[in-house]
Amino acid sequence: MSGYRLWYWPTLQGRGEFVRLALEAGGIAYEDSARVHGVEAMLADMAAHAPFAPFAPPYLVAEGRAVAQVADILLYLGDRHGLAPGDDAMRYGLHQLQLTVADFVAEAHNVHHPVAAMAYYEEQKPEAARAAAQFRDERIPKFLDHFEAATRAVAGEWVAGGRWSYVDTSLFQVVAGLRYAFPRRMATLAPHYPGLVALHDRVAALPGVTAYLASERRLPFSEEGIFRHYPELDGD
Amino acid sequence: MSGYRLWYWPTLQGRGEFVRLALEAGGIAYEDSARVHGVEAMLADMAAHAPFAPFAPPYLVAEGRAVAQVADILLYLGDRHGLAPGDDAMRYGLHQLQLTVADFVAEAHNVHHPVAAMAYYEEQKPEAARAAAQFRDERIPKFLDHFEAATRAVAGEWVAGGRWSYVDTSLFQVVAGLRYAFPRRMATLAPHYPGLVALHDRVAALPGVTAYLASERRLPFSEEGIFRHYPELDGD
Repeated sequence: MSGYRLWYWPTLQGRGEFVRLALEAGGIAYEDSARVHGVEAMLADMAAHAPFAPFAPPYLVAEGRAVAQVADILLYLGDRHGLAPGDDAMRYGLHQLQLTVADFVAEAHNVHHPVAAMAYYEEQKPEAARAAAQFRDERIPKFLDHFEAATRAVAGEWVAGGRWSYVDTSLFQVVAGLRYAFPRRMATLAPHYPGLVALHDRVAALPGVTAYLASERRLPFSEEGIFRHYPELDGD
Repeated sequence: MSGYRLWYWPTLQGRGEFVRLALEAGGIAYEDSARVHGVEAMLADMAAHAPFAPFAPPYLVAEGRAVAQVADILLYLGDRHGLAPGDDAMRYGLHQLQLTVADFVAEAHNVHHPVAAMAYYEEQKPEAARAAAQFRDERIPKFLDHFEAATRAVAGEWVAGGRWSYVDTSLFQVVAGLRYAFPRRMATLAPHYPGLVALHDRVAALPGVTAYLASERRLPFSEEGIFRHYPELDGD
């Protein structure tokens, strides 16, 4: 195998998808290692990394060294493969946006697991219904307002200006995930976010992303990941 | 004013405390700006920053430029003031740990706001009791196991080895916050985490931190921040 090993749960998009999309868009060789070697191999590998073992997947291994946490992985890939501008102000600015994406992802997961992250959705459905109402009505618009502003902040087709960065591929996934999980809510909201919708489409048209989305490497959305479609949690 | 402006809610430790501690430990000049100029000034200032306005406080302003998100601020300060080793592997590794601290902080906040982050604790007490049980029994030990391992990963008194970094000041705050919010649970758990407890004490003994903790600049823990002491959410 040449290139990177990406270790993540092999049956779901989840947080790993933000890394997969950046690698695929950048044409960077990687192995989706748990899909090849299995989950037991991942858990054994994860515990073996020094000095700081990952807390959880996803993590990326290159030359025997592991980098974990989605935003840290993307910072690392950005530095090494030009997936983010070298200019310092833009570099910290993009990372800041990625960390806000991470906060949004955590809130999106919390909707279906509000009181017990380690238990099943079915064990917390009334609480999830309450969490979903606030998420739909207040949190989605608040975050999308922020991301929409980011698409307009710099002249050019991409968040950073003239070329795509890992923040663009991440915002693609935010839009795609919300459309899957909250189709009714997104039908109402999408017209208010033309910049984000256009950015989503531009990312989907990147050759690496187009090829990826058409391949079996792109796992389907499902009720295992971050963005889950439970119709009872959706609403206009 | 010389040095940085740190903007954060003026009456609570919250997420801002992770930045305050690193600045104080490093002897870096800053103004805790909302305590001087007020919250309205903060909200006006926050909206004015380009290209990417902060999503929320805390954020740091230097030479007119804002950096937001605690982990991004600490990365930035680490790079500029030697609050983290320059070695690349350690640099990404420390950032990875800081992002896991951020995950833990989000979970700690979620305990008292499981179903509605924008509403009051008093409106979600039964749900909070359920969230707290899992947090105490499963999540605190899982994270502290991880952080304890980090204190033993590299030879030397600090997480990065021979000198303190922003991860050390952050882990100090994790221990201090848990002791405040969950005193009964921490009385049970602390003996299992001697590395973390010793690290907490070493950070408290750093001259900049000792002076800070004794000053009025250190706000008290309270039921406004991340780590809140609600006796009904604690347990052995």
